[in-house]
Amino acid sequence: MLIEAFCSVRGQTEKIASPFSPEDQQLQSMTDASPVKWHLAHGSWFFETFILAEFASRFEWFDEHFCYLFNSYYNALGQQFPRAQRGLMSRPGLERVMQYRKQVTAHVLDLLRDCDDGLFGKLAASLVLGLNHEQQHQELIMTDISHALLYRDGEQGPPVSGQSIRLNSSEGKSAADGWLDFAGGEAITGYQGQGFCFDNELAAHPELLQPFQIASHPVSNADWIEFMDAGGYDDPLLWLSDGWAWKTKNSIRCPLYWRRVDGNWRHNTLAGPEAETSDRAVSHVSYYEADAFASWKKARLPREGEWELAARSHAWETNHEPGRKPDNIRRPGQSIHELAFHDLALHDPGQCWEWTQSAYCAYPRFQVSPGMAAEYNGKFMVNQMVLKGASRATASFHSRASYRNFFYPDARWQFTSLRLARDAG
Amino acid sequence: MLIEAFCSVRGQTEKIASPFSPEDQQLQSMTDASPVKWHLAHGSWFFETFILAEFASRFEWFDEHFCYLFNSYYNALGQQFPRAQRGLMSRPGLERVMQYRKQVTAHVLDLLRDCDDGLFGKLAASLVLGLNHEQQHQELIMTDISHALLYRDGEQGPPVSGQSIRLNSSEGKSAADGWLDFAGGEAITGYQGQGFCFDNELAAHPELLQPFQIASHPVSNADWIEFMDAGGYDDPLLWLSDGWAWKTKNSIRCPLYWRRVDGNWRHNTLAGPEAETSDRAVSHVSYYEADAFASWKKARLPREGEWELAARSHAWETNHEPGRKPDNIRRPGQSIHELAFHDLALHDPGQCWEWTQSAYCAYPRFQVSPGMAAEYNGKFMVNQMVLKGASRATASFHSRASYRNFFYPDARWQFTSLRLARDAG
Amino acid sequence: MLIEAFCSVRGQTEKIASPFSPEDQQLQSMTDASPVKWHLAHGSWFFETFILAEFASRFEWFDEHFCYLFNSYYNALGQQFPRAQRGLMSRPGLERVMQYRKQVTAHVLDLLRDCDDGLFGKLAASLVLGLNHEQQHQELIMTDISHALLYRDGEQGPPVSGQSIRLNSSEGKSAADGWLDFAGGEAITGYQGQGFCFDNELAAHPELLQPFQIASHPVSNADWIEFMDAGGYDDPLLWLSDGWAWKTKNSIRCPLYWRRVDGNWRHNTLAGPEAETSDRAVSHVSYYEADAFASWKKARLPREGEWELAARSHAWETNHEPGRKPDNIRRPGQSIHELAFHDLALHDPGQCWEWTQSAYCAYPRFQVSPGMAAEYNGKFMVNQMVLKGASRATASFHSRASYRNFFYPDARWQFTSLRLARDAG
Amino acid sequence: MLIEAFCSVRGQTEKIASPFSPEDQQLQSMTDASPVKWHLAHGSWFFETFILAEFASRFEWFDEHFCYLFNSYYNALGQQFPRAQRGLMSRPGLERVMQYRKQVTAHVLDLLRDCDDGLFGKLAASLVLGLNHEQQHQELIMTDISHALLYRDGEQGPPVSGQSIRLNSSEGKSAADGWLDFAGGEAITGYQGQGFCFDNELAAHPELLQPFQIASHPVSNADWIEFMDAGGYDDPLLWLSDGWAWKTKNSIRCPLYWRRVDGNWRHNTLAGPEAETSDRAVSHVSYYEADAFASWKKARLPREGEWELAARSHAWETNHEPGRKPDNIRRPGQSIHELAFHDLALHDPGQCWEWTQSAYCAYPRFQVSPGMAAEYNGKFMVNQMVLKGASRATASFHSRASYRNFFYPDARWQFTSLRLARDAG
Repeated sequence: MLIEAFCSVRGQTEKIASPFSPEDQQLQSMTDASPVKWHLAHGSWFFETFILAEFASRFEWFDEHFCYLFNSYYNALGQQFPRAQRGLMSRPGLERVMQYRKQVTAHVLDLLRDCDDGLFGKLAASLVLGLNHEQQHQELIMTDISHALLYRDGEQGPPVSGQSIRLNSSEGKSAADGWLDFAGGEAITGYQGQGFCFDNELAAHPELLQPFQIASHPVSNADWIEFMDAGGYDDPLLWLSDGWAWKTKNSIRCPLYWRRVDGNWRHNTLAGPEAETSDRAVSHVSYYEADAFASWKKARLPREGEWELAARSHAWETNHEPGRKPDNIRRPGQSIHELAFHDLALHDPGQCWEWTQSAYCAYPRFQVSPGMAAEYNGKFMVNQMVLKGASRATASFHSRASYRNFFYPDARWQFTSLRLARDAG
Repeated sequence: MLIEAFCSVRGQTEKIASPFSPEDQQLQSMTDASPVKWHLAHGSWFFETFILAEFASRFEWFDEHFCYLFNSYYNALGQQFPRAQRGLMSRPGLERVMQYRKQVTAHVLDLLRDCDDGLFGKLAASLVLGLNHEQQHQELIMTDISHALLYRDGEQGPPVSGQSIRLNSSEGKSAADGWLDFAGGEAITGYQGQGFCFDNELAAHPELLQPFQIASHPVSNADWIEFMDAGGYDDPLLWLSDGWAWKTKNSIRCPLYWRRVDGNWRHNTLAGPEAETSDRAVSHVSYYEADAFASWKKARLPREGEWELAARSHAWETNHEPGRKPDNIRRPGQSIHELAFHDLALHDPGQCWEWTQSAYCAYPRFQVSPGMAAEYNGKFMVNQMVLKGASRATASFHSRASYRNFFYPDARWQFTSLRLARDAG
Repeated sequence: MLIEAFCSVRGQTEKIASPFSPEDQQLQSMTDASPVKWHLAHGSWFFETFILAEFASRFEWFDEHFCYLFNSYYNALGQQFPRAQRGLMSRPGLERVMQYRKQVTAHVLDLLRDCDDGLFGKLAASLVLGLNHEQQHQELIMTDISHALLYRDGEQGPPVSGQSIRLNSSEGKSAADGWLDFAGGEAITGYQGQGFCFDNELAAHPELLQPFQIASHPVSNADWIEFMDAGGYDDPLLWLSDGWAWKTKNSIRCPLYWRRVDGNWRHNTLAGPEAETSDRAVSHVSYYEADAFASWKKARLPREGEWELAARSHAWETNHEPGRKPDNIRRPGQSIHELAFHDLALHDPGQCWEWTQSAYCAYPRFQVSPGMAAEYNGKFMVNQMVLKGASRATASFHSRASYRNFFYPDARWQFTSLRLARDAG
Repeated sequence: MLIEAFCSVRGQTEKIASPFSPEDQQLQSMTDASPVKWHLAHGSWFFETFILAEFASRFEWFDEHFCYLFNSYYNALGQQFPRAQRGLMSRPGLERVMQYRKQVTAHVLDLLRDCDDGLFGKLAASLVLGLNHEQQHQELIMTDISHALLYRDGEQGPPVSGQSIRLNSSEGKSAADGWLDFAGGEAITGYQGQGFCFDNELAAHPELLQPFQIASHPVSNADWIEFMDAGGYDDPLLWLSDGWAWKTKNSIRCPLYWRRVDGNWRHNTLAGPEAETSDRAVSHVSYYEADAFASWKKARLPREGEWELAARSHAWETNHEPGRKPDNIRRPGQSIHELAFHDLALHDPGQCWEWTQSAYCAYPRFQVSPGMAAEYNGKFMVNQMVLKGASRATASFHSRASYRNFFYPDARWQFTSLRLARDAG
């Protein structure tokens, strides 16, 4: 089954990249983003380094220089090509990167087919980590190429020429107002199941929550237009101090990829300007904007533990009783796609990650993964904020209630939205 | 009694500033810092705006333009003179600023002497806030002028000329190794007493803590030299990713104001190079450095709640029993100077604020102060880290166990140190 | 006579600085400018280094550290305090700098009074250089303190508080239109007299000039307003490419210190807003702006040699005959104040340096001064443009027709104006 | 014959670009440089705009959006895509750009074949300008792609992977020492022939030159190594002030693309590390470096007029007589490749442009071209220095003695060298 998953994930990555030309795949429009071609190679480097180099007999590097080019940030594994210059990497060309992928995939499959239970027991954890890692980069491929192709579209002057790329897209669902009540108490935060999770989701631990309410739906595009019309971007009293400075310096007036055309707001996407989507969750807002919106609504963003508790509440999903402590509070680990919030569906075209007011930091008794993956998550635990949920670009079955996504508070190129919360009781 | 406190605090501010020439008092060596003269004026602006303009009859501004010059960041009160240019404010001169102080002090005293209980009831809270506010700026005066006069001292080339300023200083106490044990459980975090606290210390709330240990003493200069000698500044695996980038970009090799002279480390201060102080708490380290040190020691920084619990533990102070839950866990609000950690004494010349691993964010049910002071604390709740305790430059009786100081993780010009913690049980 | 000149120049510098407080005198509002106090000390450092240290018996430095603090850019004389941080030099205070001046002046006078003809012959050249040097800094004191006190005045928001400084000022003279004709031919450019000149004015050399016309008056404020009203700042076709980029990046809309008040243009000065001065030469424009204005007028800026020839033309001044080659073309070296252009008068309150289209470069057979003054002029011969004439802030008898002032093309804080020229014949 | 020239130039551009992959051709490694693909398209845009749109009947734009994308800097023709982001232009892809070239070439040929003498008379000047323009971009293609592929090679860490590109290369000629003497006098500077020249080469005008000497050969790699070994990069007294600041800020220690390998200097090129080339002209030095080298040699760079006079001296080339005024001083306009300096040969593999000490400014009576080409040269006449000659990458018969190339004094990615000069007589 791991063999099928491996084939499926590797194939899916290539499928996501396939609509883009070699020239598109080389673009890097900001330091935070990477070229598609780099993502394709980096995923293979991960398997080559953590699986083949560790476990394969008669191992040889595809190209030793790739260890420098496609190592993202693992200092324990050596120096890295400067991140800000990945867009200047015309060599290797895409064709050679695809050969790299093909060979690594083949060698991993050879290894998996030949290995006995003992070896399998040793490598399985790294392999599953590699698959989850590659899924994360699938999402980054989408957000990074979106930025590279769309970022100029909000500016004055005609956009970069070229046809739109057709992506699957379906209509959003109609949103309804509503607050969900939670009585608070001792909740378990973090991953508790038997499956895979990242080191940063551990240790699962009890946390005391005060009574709170959380919105049944994320903030919609229509809500956001109301905020803009009310002067939300012009009132410093709504904003965090750092947020106001950021907004002012960058002349932020609306979400990323939004543009005013003939008096209407247009949201541009890789599939072209979006049709009317006022019910859909607003997307591409920074933490700063999300926080200002919440202030304007005299509400706040949920804490990570609140969000997680709410997302796990089965009862609450189908039969919401205000104030009732969810009975499944100790059954975490289910896919966020299966339960979660009212409007969370598998690949809802409007689905977004949701900012929480929790800074990304270590859980009590957090331990970084042993071995080479030690630098995976822990070293980023400062200056970033936690996002929960999943987005339209997240791989199926990749996320879960305990999943901790994290970005700097000014990041906007991910599919980022928000859901309001407030104190209760 | 409030009248005496008012006179005492106002006088103390002026005493702190008095050794410095008008030219010294105009210096602004970085955007984060302000000139002493500006601090002197700003404290008066605070009382003028929040007390006199609100409550005095026949009120007139000393100089209306000062509302622009000396408003720090209160957007609700109008535009502000650009922070980065405060050092270019030669006018008003120091003499006029001292007149401003004198008049504001006199008018507040007039008001206090004349006012009836009704009025007093209304203004007392603002007055106490103003006094605590002014005490905060007393500390900033010391740290900002230190930076202005010392920051070039670590560089090659002779320092800025001028005699040292004599400050009171006594010898540090000898440090001893030792871990203090705490069993964890439900602790109250935040302020619970009847006295003054800032809005960000509320609401006091129960928090679940895991068993932990905390060091009886902060990390010393001798410890830090050991860290440097062991190559701590050269090993990326010890550092947070943002910290390593910061360290590299700024060529950080030692704490601020440290300088290598003839093979020895010299710590420069306003009173001149320090005498041998190896037992004293290391000072002027950033959060990034503190975190790297803790990693090197295979420990971590304490969480805010852990630090607060430990600081309140009377039993622990005098009669430490490992694993015992402090019986005074519900008696917070006492001055940190009275109980606290073993080596915390009133105005210990080596005393420092201590970094915690907690990001500065809102406590559950946090509400910003109503009225004009709404911008005091809440709008800074992103990107900063909490520090606990007090420093040699903190006003007496100003701090307490629930006090939340906060700075960006790269800040080093405050008296910042660290104390190790680790998981237990 | 040199003794009187020395006393007079030294005294004049101190007189110019005297209206400003110690706090004013410490201001440095941009890297290009220096604090008044620094100028005061630097002039003394120059005499101490080039006269006293060289020629005085029993010489001792006033303070050795001053060699580091007040050396401007003479690498041959050792390291320098970073230019950009001169505003952070609160120590030495102004009082000590004035003692420094007093002692250096006294010691130079002692030396001059005691020295025999032999010694005098050796030191005279350095002394005269020192006097001319100090006069240059007299002008910089005025322009630098102006920038420090006025630069914020064009911005939104109230200006820095403080009373205006009263400077002598008289009304401008009425301007009249008119072109002066020159037939071209072989002209001598550069200094030819027996008096003092800087190394960069040599060697005087013949230069072939084409027939040209030059305006009898510089461009006036009224002319400039016409240019602005005609959209001169909005038409890229008028501008040099670097100029347009500079203008756009810095949102330049008018000369420095100009501000639109109630529909009128106000020019701010140290003496307060100027009265109606439409006939006065426009001031505080960059080379880029000057060049754009000339393009708009379908004219050009004069070349350095053209300007110099015109300035020397006595005939032309009193009895202008078009096309006639001035008969005094070989009598240069007279003060620019004595002959020069029609509207050039001693300390005309509107007088300005005038941009030429000549880049500042070496004259044929240029040799840098021997000895310590080698770095005075030559090392700046790239990226700057020549200005001719003198300004209201130039010391009397300091300038001459061959004088080569130079600044970067974006500099605006000097008293800079322009005069049109065009091809003829 | 113009038809053949057109075909040849267009074909040559494509031949130069052909060794590079579509991904290579998209690289932009700094703002000053452009992607090869952009150059390919821009050359076509020039013909489409200045020839087809002006003179063709039934004209239609290939793609109207290309007017925005591929207009370099002609403000009169509308807004331009931001220069610094040309590397983010994945669309149009290279394939479409090649279609664009093909169609423009075909349409121009159609026009040329069909047009009568009257029309030809009108368009010939623009066509020749277009050809010379395209030749300029041929050189830029080589220098820009070189920078993109080589610029990281001097840094620590392995270079970008990929095979070297084979370029034609032959051995340099042996250099010999020697100064050529010129008596000075009145020389004609600027273009005087009947052929094509750029507007900035006019008007040809007499210029007075002092007696001078100029080196028969440019400075060689061996000379440069001597300069480095003598500490030339460490002595501020050799450098212009701006040059020293530039050198220090950018940690410049050697020419661009040079790298120290095992104690030897390696010059990297697109064809791989160069073989021993100590006699070859040093390449890839900035004006600042060139000026410092000349100072070290107690010489100077030639003035533009001096260089031009020397380059025209036929007698001097074949039969050099010191002090003799060249008899062909009034026969300019011959190709630089035909006469010129001793070591200047057609496509000498070591040939370089040579810095002069002349700032790039307008010649007397300079007039910008009328019409749309007005922005071609004139608007760059500030802040740049003139280079004379031609380089290995210059198109055959493209340059001439009056040719004025110009770059900022810090530019190093062109094939730039120097030749010494000094005063004589």
